[in-house]
Amino acid sequence: MGVHVARFKTGSEIRWGVVREEKLVVIPGSYATLAEFLGEGAARARRLAAAPEGETLAVRDVELLSPVTAPCNVVCQGQNYRSHMLEVGQDPDAKDFNQFFRKASSALTSSRGPIIKPERVRMLDYEIELGLVIGRHLSGPSRVKRENLHEFIAGLVICNDVSARDIQLAEGQWYKAKSFRTFCPAGPYLYLLDAEDNARVMNLNLRLSVNEQVRQDSNTSEMVYPPEETLSELSEVMDLFPGDLVMTGTPRGVAAGHNAPKNAKFIRKVLMAVLSEKDLSKLVVKMQSRNPAYLKDGDVVRATISSPDGGIHLGTQENRVVAASRAAP
Amino acid sequence: MGVHVARFKTGSEIRWGVVREEKLVVIPGSYATLAEFLGEGAARARRLAAAPEGETLAVRDVELLSPVTAPCNVVCQGQNYRSHMLEVGQDPDAKDFNQFFRKASSALTSSRGPIIKPERVRMLDYEIELGLVIGRHLSGPSRVKRENLHEFIAGLVICNDVSARDIQLAEGQWYKAKSFRTFCPAGPYLYLLDAEDNARVMNLNLRLSVNEQVRQDSNTSEMVYPPEETLSELSEVMDLFPGDLVMTGTPRGVAAGHNAPKNAKFIRKVLMAVLSEKDLSKLVVKMQSRNPAYLKDGDVVRATISSPDGGIHLGTQENRVVAASRAAP
Repeated sequence: MGVHVARFKTGSEIRWGVVREEKLVVIPGSYATLAEFLGEGAARARRLAAAPEGETLAVRDVELLSPVTAPCNVVCQGQNYRSHMLEVGQDPDAKDFNQFFRKASSALTSSRGPIIKPERVRMLDYEIELGLVIGRHLSGPSRVKRENLHEFIAGLVICNDVSARDIQLAEGQWYKAKSFRTFCPAGPYLYLLDAEDNARVMNLNLRLSVNEQVRQDSNTSEMVYPPEETLSELSEVMDLFPGDLVMTGTPRGVAAGHNAPKNAKFIRKVLMAVLSEKDLSKLVVKMQSRNPAYLKDGDVVRATISSPDGGIHLGTQENRVVAASRAAP
Repeated sequence: MGVHVARFKTGSEIRWGVVREEKLVVIPGSYATLAEFLGEGAARARRLAAAPEGETLAVRDVELLSPVTAPCNVVCQGQNYRSHMLEVGQDPDAKDFNQFFRKASSALTSSRGPIIKPERVRMLDYEIELGLVIGRHLSGPSRVKRENLHEFIAGLVICNDVSARDIQLAEGQWYKAKSFRTFCPAGPYLYLLDAEDNARVMNLNLRLSVNEQVRQDSNTSEMVYPPEETLSELSEVMDLFPGDLVMTGTPRGVAAGHNAPKNAKFIRKVLMAVLSEKDLSKLVVKMQSRNPAYLKDGDVVRATISSPDGGIHLGTQENRVVAASRAAP
């Protein structure tokens, strides 16, 4: 039985706890960052999970926080599910590279906080993703394998890669569109990965709904580049540190793919030939702005990731969309 | 007269000094990161610059390091000089947004270190850029103006946004192509910005040569989005912290623009209509791989940024390109 932990606030104090159904067994000690927690804190969590003792709180009595703390590196994979590539007019068979981009870590927010919709954003979209929390400093090329994932990944967490599609389409580079504050709900629970979980990482159900309507419903087995390949390549490029977050891409069902024509790829190609890039992106934004699937003020986004046997259950995200004009300063 | 500082190594010790021609006046104290230095260290540097005293070292006797320290946020502007947009087949008049992307901070390296060319990279390019070092925590929208730049920017530094064009072209998102280790030489000198320098930021000469052949020769006055607009918009999106780096884009003269046809934009459009994206990027890589302007093993890249009156002189970068197979492990 694996160990799930949560970071939370009671009064003005930030603490960590081991999740046991609807209760939290408080983990002794104070950890300012996820990286700090992953040392002694995680070891204490494992001991407490085996032999619970000490203070216990009800989950409903605390304020759940993101277990991933900023600042950290947030690295994202683009188009890592075939079903998502198809719905946005891309050709999965033509892809022969693992696409990476970044998201600002200041976008991190709790699994209960508002997703604030900036005034300038008209096409606000969601993307459920499995988040990998890095467990060690990768300072050079590493050969990561399925069998030793747990030596590199400290844990798993639900992430929502909230995206301003109008900015993303118009600007080409995705960083800004995906980096607004509150655009990265993470948590509620961090599952601490053990050796026996390595194979299970590729069999987790992802499900996201908007106002109770299921939009995304898939499984990590559909990933194009699995975590061992992703981490191996990233380690050849950059340093990763304990507490960093790698987001592994989203499956089909995003708002941008809502009612997409079957020949989206062909239409896109034709339009690219006759329109300037700017006019094309304007046209797409205009057509898509009538798409009712984009997130509106008041919408509630719910997301879960769990193993089919329920042994891994990363909890439930429940974030309400709030227009910036209505958000508390 | 402004204050230039350097971070350097003597023996196994890392120290900071005020630059006075070819000498360094050692700044008392130990600063593990640039963020730490920007507090008491920078104040000490200003006092020492006004009244030099204590230990002095010759620049040639020390090992110069990057004044920007990792980890930090490295945020880059894309296509922020009209002349560069034109040479890579983009239409500057159609652009109505400030484009941002990220570079891994583990790419930071000294102004003297090797630029290591990964084996997989065939089209290695350079981009001289003015780097802005952030001086305060920006935790929400800020109105940055030309007159108060010094309240947000702690200092200026030369950066080289080294780029693997083959990866950049094939993969669309630029993060990986620009993030390999050693792909961000920074320094040697950090110029501490004062109120009277604010207007001068937009009149700095940038010059980059490869093996003594001048490739880039421009001035920051050609920027499309000046620093006050860039920082204002970034502050609306994300948090920035003291010691973070904002790279402001490169002018014309990169290898990718070498001998570019005058009608590059039109040709690109025609090819986009008849080829798949993958075939198009393959074709470009094939054509461009014969381009002799790309960096090769042994090439020496020199870069300087200075004000026309010489009052601001960020020093000279001199980095040699070394094939990964020949680089020390």
